[in-house]
Amino acid sequence: MIVVMQKGCSAEAIYNLMERIKGDGYDVHLSEGEERTIVGVVGHSPTPLKEENYSSMPEVEKVLRVTAPYKLASYDFHPNDTLVPLNGTLLGGEKVLVVAGPCSVESREQIIETAHAVKEAGATALRGGAFKPRTSPYSFQGHGEDGLKWMAEAREQTGLPIVTEVMSSELVPLVAEYADVLQVGARNMQNFHLLNACGESQQTVLLKRGMSSKLEDLLMAAEYVLSHGNSRVILCERGIRTFETATRNTFDLGAIPALQQMTHLPVVADPSHATGKWEYVEPVARGAVAAGADGLLLEVHLQPDKALSDGRQSLTPKRFRQLMENVRQVAQAIGRDA
Amino acid sequence: MIVVMQKGCSAEAIYNLMERIKGDGYDVHLSEGEERTIVGVVGHSPTPLKEENYSSMPEVEKVLRVTAPYKLASYDFHPNDTLVPLNGTLLGGEKVLVVAGPCSVESREQIIETAHAVKEAGATALRGGAFKPRTSPYSFQGHGEDGLKWMAEAREQTGLPIVTEVMSSELVPLVAEYADVLQVGARNMQNFHLLNACGESQQTVLLKRGMSSKLEDLLMAAEYVLSHGNSRVILCERGIRTFETATRNTFDLGAIPALQQMTHLPVVADPSHATGKWEYVEPVARGAVAAGADGLLLEVHLQPDKALSDGRQSLTPKRFRQLMENVRQVAQAIGRDA
Amino acid sequence: MIVVMQKGCSAEAIYNLMERIKGDGYDVHLSEGEERTIVGVVGHSPTPLKEENYSSMPEVEKVLRVTAPYKLASYDFHPNDTLVPLNGTLLGGEKVLVVAGPCSVESREQIIETAHAVKEAGATALRGGAFKPRTSPYSFQGHGEDGLKWMAEAREQTGLPIVTEVMSSELVPLVAEYADVLQVGARNMQNFHLLNACGESQQTVLLKRGMSSKLEDLLMAAEYVLSHGNSRVILCERGIRTFETATRNTFDLGAIPALQQMTHLPVVADPSHATGKWEYVEPVARGAVAAGADGLLLEVHLQPDKALSDGRQSLTPKRFRQLMENVRQVAQAIGRDA
Amino acid sequence: MIVVMQKGCSAEAIYNLMERIKGDGYDVHLSEGEERTIVGVVGHSPTPLKEENYSSMPEVEKVLRVTAPYKLASYDFHPNDTLVPLNGTLLGGEKVLVVAGPCSVESREQIIETAHAVKEAGATALRGGAFKPRTSPYSFQGHGEDGLKWMAEAREQTGLPIVTEVMSSELVPLVAEYADVLQVGARNMQNFHLLNACGESQQTVLLKRGMSSKLEDLLMAAEYVLSHGNSRVILCERGIRTFETATRNTFDLGAIPALQQMTHLPVVADPSHATGKWEYVEPVARGAVAAGADGLLLEVHLQPDKALSDGRQSLTPKRFRQLMENVRQVAQAIGRDA
Repeated sequence: MIVVMQKGCSAEAIYNLMERIKGDGYDVHLSEGEERTIVGVVGHSPTPLKEENYSSMPEVEKVLRVTAPYKLASYDFHPNDTLVPLNGTLLGGEKVLVVAGPCSVESREQIIETAHAVKEAGATALRGGAFKPRTSPYSFQGHGEDGLKWMAEAREQTGLPIVTEVMSSELVPLVAEYADVLQVGARNMQNFHLLNACGESQQTVLLKRGMSSKLEDLLMAAEYVLSHGNSRVILCERGIRTFETATRNTFDLGAIPALQQMTHLPVVADPSHATGKWEYVEPVARGAVAAGADGLLLEVHLQPDKALSDGRQSLTPKRFRQLMENVRQVAQAIGRDA
Repeated sequence: MIVVMQKGCSAEAIYNLMERIKGDGYDVHLSEGEERTIVGVVGHSPTPLKEENYSSMPEVEKVLRVTAPYKLASYDFHPNDTLVPLNGTLLGGEKVLVVAGPCSVESREQIIETAHAVKEAGATALRGGAFKPRTSPYSFQGHGEDGLKWMAEAREQTGLPIVTEVMSSELVPLVAEYADVLQVGARNMQNFHLLNACGESQQTVLLKRGMSSKLEDLLMAAEYVLSHGNSRVILCERGIRTFETATRNTFDLGAIPALQQMTHLPVVADPSHATGKWEYVEPVARGAVAAGADGLLLEVHLQPDKALSDGRQSLTPKRFRQLMENVRQVAQAIGRDA
Repeated sequence: MIVVMQKGCSAEAIYNLMERIKGDGYDVHLSEGEERTIVGVVGHSPTPLKEENYSSMPEVEKVLRVTAPYKLASYDFHPNDTLVPLNGTLLGGEKVLVVAGPCSVESREQIIETAHAVKEAGATALRGGAFKPRTSPYSFQGHGEDGLKWMAEAREQTGLPIVTEVMSSELVPLVAEYADVLQVGARNMQNFHLLNACGESQQTVLLKRGMSSKLEDLLMAAEYVLSHGNSRVILCERGIRTFETATRNTFDLGAIPALQQMTHLPVVADPSHATGKWEYVEPVARGAVAAGADGLLLEVHLQPDKALSDGRQSLTPKRFRQLMENVRQVAQAIGRDA
Repeated sequence: MIVVMQKGCSAEAIYNLMERIKGDGYDVHLSEGEERTIVGVVGHSPTPLKEENYSSMPEVEKVLRVTAPYKLASYDFHPNDTLVPLNGTLLGGEKVLVVAGPCSVESREQIIETAHAVKEAGATALRGGAFKPRTSPYSFQGHGEDGLKWMAEAREQTGLPIVTEVMSSELVPLVAEYADVLQVGARNMQNFHLLNACGESQQTVLLKRGMSSKLEDLLMAAEYVLSHGNSRVILCERGIRTFETATRNTFDLGAIPALQQMTHLPVVADPSHATGKWEYVEPVARGAVAAGADGLLLEVHLQPDKALSDGRQSLTPKRFRQLMENVRQVAQAIGRDA
């Protein structure tokens, strides 16, 4: 970490800063330039190194980070890629895995029929929401535990593991009883109680990027889960909020190679939430896979025009089958499979 | 609500849409233009009116809202301004109220001494964090219930009501035992479990705008609290996330008059989190009050350079006194007081 | 266009609005709902239909568009895809075309050697900047006409057509003398004098999306060129500015299918400017092609670490060859070629 | 400037970097930490110091700036505040100056009558557009030189200096013949030819912040003007583009104190374009002045509902008079006048 002092700062300010740094257990590396004095914070110490330790010291102009604030999520700590087991295969490995299903679990029949349909088309896991975070209190909020039970029945029949959202820390034990993968939604990406509870559960966690989260924030959120010794974390790019309104969110394609450079955790993409329109889902799915995504999260509904939520962005089973075929071609073109 | 059909849509698609609308209990108003057929959804029905009901019907191009999706938060429902009682006065009334205190409650002595200092300078309430949402799991996470107890002691000595953050639904009962105002942080603005729990608590709620929340989203979040019959909701503009990095967030000044046109709820401003630098706090505080904010939320620390969090944006008690004086002048210039 | 009146608006306001609409040559379609009165503007008239015509009328709450504001760029006007001739083939057709070359033309030798290298690897056209828009007045501003001459020489030797930026309307005649395609940069996307001059030139125009431009804005900018009878316009997604800093800009993958739904004009992608780092260029290039981009714009430099601009995002000729091969695989996987 | 090397970088990479730095005329300051080697670039040299010089060298992880990239706009270069003469007083001095007038000059009568009205209410200068940058080619594009002549006539009658936009470098001589202040619009903030032409003109320049421009970008644009020896530059915050749609743009209040800390140039605010609705203009104007803005740019129209552009955000002369009174109160509350 590097502390840049204000122009013409006093010797006292430098001295006080150096004392503070040493008090935190770090060494000091002083560089007095013609324009600015720069104080390097080097070495190791149990005290976490944070900008805020020094940024409010007198006559400090700014603090620049040299290393990333996340540790367990970085290659520095874990030089090999993390592979997350899912349905007998490994997410992050050669195969591009596809998690598909409805936005909301609407009925027992619906989820079971959908599970069969997506399995047949080649999906690796089943998604479906039992507890739904809805912008409006007047929207359908999900069937709760009934939804989880119906999903479990679908799993029994198809063998597909279940990916479902958990919205609150106190629901983690209940949801973890049924689900194979705990999904943390974009709106909860910085719900730290929830992240801690997911970490403690030791279950696989699919962590969606928040709508206004930098990749660094996403990795810091992953760090909460990882810090409980739970290393099975899947990151998900699902679009960020920008000024553009032609799509529901803005799918940040560069996030895929950037995350792969920043972290050893696998990265999947959610083209349904990113675009908000089913016509755009397949092109974005193909693009994400071509750019290196390890998997896809896709909304499939038997009758999108009757869906209780997100119908506009849901694929019919028929369109999903088509997508799977096309995505497979793209995956093979880059030396993977789907 | 208005449904715009695709160019050259079929009669069947229009018919099906009309049937769907009637099935939802609404009347249809058809307008066949030369370029597009437009279907108006009019009348009243117990079925909530949502874009998604119709946007995924075949041959629908788009759905346009005519009225706002929030109800209880709107003037349509509640034509008079809501005034929220705080420390014997009314937030939303003539006086601009100031809530001040440290980011984190760091010790019993700290919070008590700060409470006296801010009271003396004219603050109406004391803020302080006992449970802290921190981007990094390695940062100080707050003293928890001890912090709440120390705040309660500070209230006993000074008479200042307590504003403090509650981070999770299961903590609402505990925090509500000590706090006068439950603060919902920006990262939790769409934590719907938490909003429901705050609504049920019937305690005053200070709801901070999420970093990527439109004003409409903020009002929908308020709607969650209001829908439990809890009308004491205070909205807080605290800056949004944009591409600008010169300030920690971007303080959206236009949000103040816009919210005052959209809702009857009082609106306060948090210049500390918006700017991230204490030098900018006073100008932004003056600006927010001049634009009509009903109150301010300000971080004050006895020794900002030793703060465990947010020291860079904290005012010393001395600077806070100066700010109070200057803000009072501005409030009086627009016919209010502070 | 639909005008929503304020709740409880006066008959006079409605009357005045109707008179204004009729005065503009349109018909009125009135719908008095229980909550709001809605006035439809229908029919045809030579007066362009703009929100602002009616949004400032008394007691008007808001104006909603039914049809897009762009015409010539839309399928309504031009139902077939536009194919732009480039080097004996058609951009927008089956083949994915690649335009490659250095950010800046740095010397005669450099551009000629680069032209040979990119041609050999399969590029369809040569890019290079002779006039450079630089954020800093202290940065290299380009070799001007000399650069154009050197590019023309490179074209003579390789047969590759030239794509180069024109920064100002008064430079259009000069640049058009040498260039095959006039590039309008992101910072100039709403430089309307320049757009008009490019339109008048009747030369092919490559129009880059502005950093804060919605797709609708991009199409309105294209409309300026098209309105001069110049239909050879190529749109380019090159990343938008958001809060994310891990990449130079945020590549908006959904923009590709969205534009293809909104307009008949071909769409290319610029992964170099979108990401700012050469390591991310190939994944993003593959992703853009998989999502349906008609072409790519890529920065290639003989010695990126010695480049006068944008070295960090430039590919070496060797890496470019590798990229071409991999992109070709992806193109073939979706039934195209590259 | 600080260059951070990749973890475990080679001695050769460090050596080559050091040679490059020395070749640029700078000194090297090496710091080998346990985690990363850091190379400081210190001293002075005629070669401008840019990140890109070193960021594409092998094994470089990132380059961090210590000092700002703008020079002439900074206090380092010009320690005293710049005061810009306007109508016999100084912008940047004690008085808050107000520039008012219509968005477009629509007729001789209109601009003259408006000039009298705004003068009477206390405006210091007259604004009005003769050349209009319009998103749509189908919108009114301004009266051109006729508009300038009518403004000159209005100046003759009222003594108010003229502020008007110049859209293209080749128009600078014409516009400069009539105008007292050349306005560069948000969409042209990085039209570097235009900035150079304005710099050369030696006339006062009002530079509007681009919709997606960081404050640093705005200062780099100012640097273009300043580098021609033209120091009369006024900066204007007019709202940036974000995801929020309740206002036309997002007025960034923190930009005012931030700019005042970063530069000696005066800063004015444009609440009309920032908000897009006349009801929000006065609150935002009061807020900007309370936060320290040196002036205001306001749209005033005799009959906003008949305006050819921007009627929705225009004040009537009556409302403008009221605003002037209220803004004056706020200015006096912070020890200034208006």
